[in-house]
Amino acid sequence: MKILVANCGSSSIKYQLFSMTAERVLARGLLERVGDPSARLHHSTDAGRHELDVYAPDHSSGMKIIFRILADPEKGVIKSIYEINGVGHRVVHGGEAMIDSCRVDNRVIAIVRGNFDLAPLHNPPNLAGIEAAMEVLPDVPHVAVFDTAFLSTLPKKAHRYAVPADWYEGHHVRKYGFHGASHKYVALRAAELLGKPADRTNLITCHLGNGCSMTAVAGGKAVDHSMGMTPLEGLIMGTRSGDVDPAVVLYMLGRGLSAQQVDAALNKSSGLLGLSGVSNDMRDLLALSHKDGDPRAADAALAVEMFVYRIVRYIGSYYAILPGLDAVVLTGGIGENSVPVRAMIVDQLARLGARLDEARNGQTVNGRAGQITADGSALGVWVIPTNEELMIARDTKRIIGSVVPRY
Amino acid sequence: MKILVANCGSSSIKYQLFSMTAERVLARGLLERVGDPSARLHHSTDAGRHELDVYAPDHSSGMKIIFRILADPEKGVIKSIYEINGVGHRVVHGGEAMIDSCRVDNRVIAIVRGNFDLAPLHNPPNLAGIEAAMEVLPDVPHVAVFDTAFLSTLPKKAHRYAVPADWYEGHHVRKYGFHGASHKYVALRAAELLGKPADRTNLITCHLGNGCSMTAVAGGKAVDHSMGMTPLEGLIMGTRSGDVDPAVVLYMLGRGLSAQQVDAALNKSSGLLGLSGVSNDMRDLLALSHKDGDPRAADAALAVEMFVYRIVRYIGSYYAILPGLDAVVLTGGIGENSVPVRAMIVDQLARLGARLDEARNGQTVNGRAGQITADGSALGVWVIPTNEELMIARDTKRIIGSVVPRY
Repeated sequence: MKILVANCGSSSIKYQLFSMTAERVLARGLLERVGDPSARLHHSTDAGRHELDVYAPDHSSGMKIIFRILADPEKGVIKSIYEINGVGHRVVHGGEAMIDSCRVDNRVIAIVRGNFDLAPLHNPPNLAGIEAAMEVLPDVPHVAVFDTAFLSTLPKKAHRYAVPADWYEGHHVRKYGFHGASHKYVALRAAELLGKPADRTNLITCHLGNGCSMTAVAGGKAVDHSMGMTPLEGLIMGTRSGDVDPAVVLYMLGRGLSAQQVDAALNKSSGLLGLSGVSNDMRDLLALSHKDGDPRAADAALAVEMFVYRIVRYIGSYYAILPGLDAVVLTGGIGENSVPVRAMIVDQLARLGARLDEARNGQTVNGRAGQITADGSALGVWVIPTNEELMIARDTKRIIGSVVPRY
Repeated sequence: MKILVANCGSSSIKYQLFSMTAERVLARGLLERVGDPSARLHHSTDAGRHELDVYAPDHSSGMKIIFRILADPEKGVIKSIYEINGVGHRVVHGGEAMIDSCRVDNRVIAIVRGNFDLAPLHNPPNLAGIEAAMEVLPDVPHVAVFDTAFLSTLPKKAHRYAVPADWYEGHHVRKYGFHGASHKYVALRAAELLGKPADRTNLITCHLGNGCSMTAVAGGKAVDHSMGMTPLEGLIMGTRSGDVDPAVVLYMLGRGLSAQQVDAALNKSSGLLGLSGVSNDMRDLLALSHKDGDPRAADAALAVEMFVYRIVRYIGSYYAILPGLDAVVLTGGIGENSVPVRAMIVDQLARLGARLDEARNGQTVNGRAGQITADGSALGVWVIPTNEELMIARDTKRIIGSVVPRY
């Protein structure tokens, strides 16, 4: 069984073609600058890497280019696109309706469209990608894998805000959460590594990339989560503020900024970038924070310190509400690779019983999984590389398998 | 030594006159509807209670009415207002400059005025009260006791937000915190009750009234706090939302609300009131949540559940970052009196080692202080009635005593 996973952004399409027999990636790529005269395709297989200038004025033409190269006699990995048994589409926002991945039909399309207001930057290109792929492969099952679905089990006390009831009932204001495929993937993988059934595993999973989120997992189910109605809430991120007094938004409007300017500032010029004034990249900030005599070192160090502090506070808050805690799991670019940030996190979790093993921490990089706390540490902290694309492919396979053929 | 404590709101003046020898309240009262043709004075002493219709078109005339009744031959408690040795004024916002209570001079007045933007509802009447009292007693020391001062020890990692640096440097956007006199009072009292030096006591103090806030106290100093730049952030309150994805503000602006409407909704129609749709009073909600067959029972129960859940999450987050924890302290109207809410909080702190003593919880009401956890509970939870006015009076006495006479 071959499954194509597609992730359509406003000006990009990422894809991976899986052979599900051994869960192997046959091809992967990125089409950049969709909608621009100079779109560019990065495509790689075991046989080699290719970079091509292509004409992709919209998602529909972009998707056709991807299908074409997958079946290209020289650069491709399949003889015909009809070898593809299903397509899994990452969709950011499923709203309250979507509690699992789901085969795409008119109802699902209506739901994705119905959530444009809640995810104005993501759902429209996600839907454009679905429609483009269905145009090329209309007779193959397409599955929508929602970023919000794994978080749909959050109880009311965790997903409601204490705002006027009408904001929830009339305007859908609640916490939805995001990064679901990533949290689900590492939660399942953690249970495997811990040798426990997933439905009896209690975890705190931390996705620390350019976007950052954290999920409290009780008995395999998400029970709380740091992102909110939008991905702005929660942890400090590359360019997003995370938690801020909501009155700050109103205050800055009163200081003459427009709503668009406040929105852009909190989403694109805040977080590590806003604090440091220099970079949203953790590696830059770590280097800079140790640069003697550099006037920007103190701000860079503060950005790193606050990033870690916020994570520790969230872990503490989930520690208190979980029925038990088998492990804290770190994933995402920073979680998988930043040895110093991980050391700071574990050191600051001393009160919860974590004790760092420096050698393990140093070794567990570049895609390796493993515990980075010492044997006998009362709280285990693990690094587990995430694989959202594989999670989407697996969900797609599962949903396809569960569908009663219509014909 | 006699000290008058004044707390001026936009349309009210609360006051207490203390004899500091035994820290006894000689008189206390409330002048309501200042600025309205029908202002009303509630005044009480050991000798009796009085209610009077008075003419108080502004804070200046209101303050004069209060001084007059304090020295009234029948209803008063002093022969002359010149028996008053000092006046302590509650001031909500001291900004970054005020790290302690301070004798009022032109510089302090300029600072209080300079923070009008940060506390537009509070600092202007606070200042009006100071100026009115200084008009009547110009030769007596006046002391400003800032709500923010006890929180001024928050380290950068706790008080900064991850917003553009310019928002902090140019617009003073940071966490300030509030309820300082209350947190300071119960923190000092907790150290006494625990038999430890205050500067070696680690606490989480929870002020749960109509406004709610929580402070992490390490070695007697505040190191983190739940309210933010404004009192909107943090715990769920009577009518305030507490934490909400800041993007919700922008989203509701996009749904057609004005900034004023969003502000009013989050501050006045949210919290317990917003969730329940019925009341901002915890007693009402507890009663309603047990009313079989009442269609509003579920929402009332959810409001109570979320109120408790948020508190537990914050306690967990501070537990993780404190170097140790001698006790959790509950105070304010709900903290001092709501036996069921306290039971829910302690029960949900089981993971941190708290174990409720039901009898103690039931008895520790109506101004009594004491531990409500069982002997041997790994985490102690205490109820300590707050006394912000006494804290203000003590600070005033201390500041007066430390001032070198000018004459």
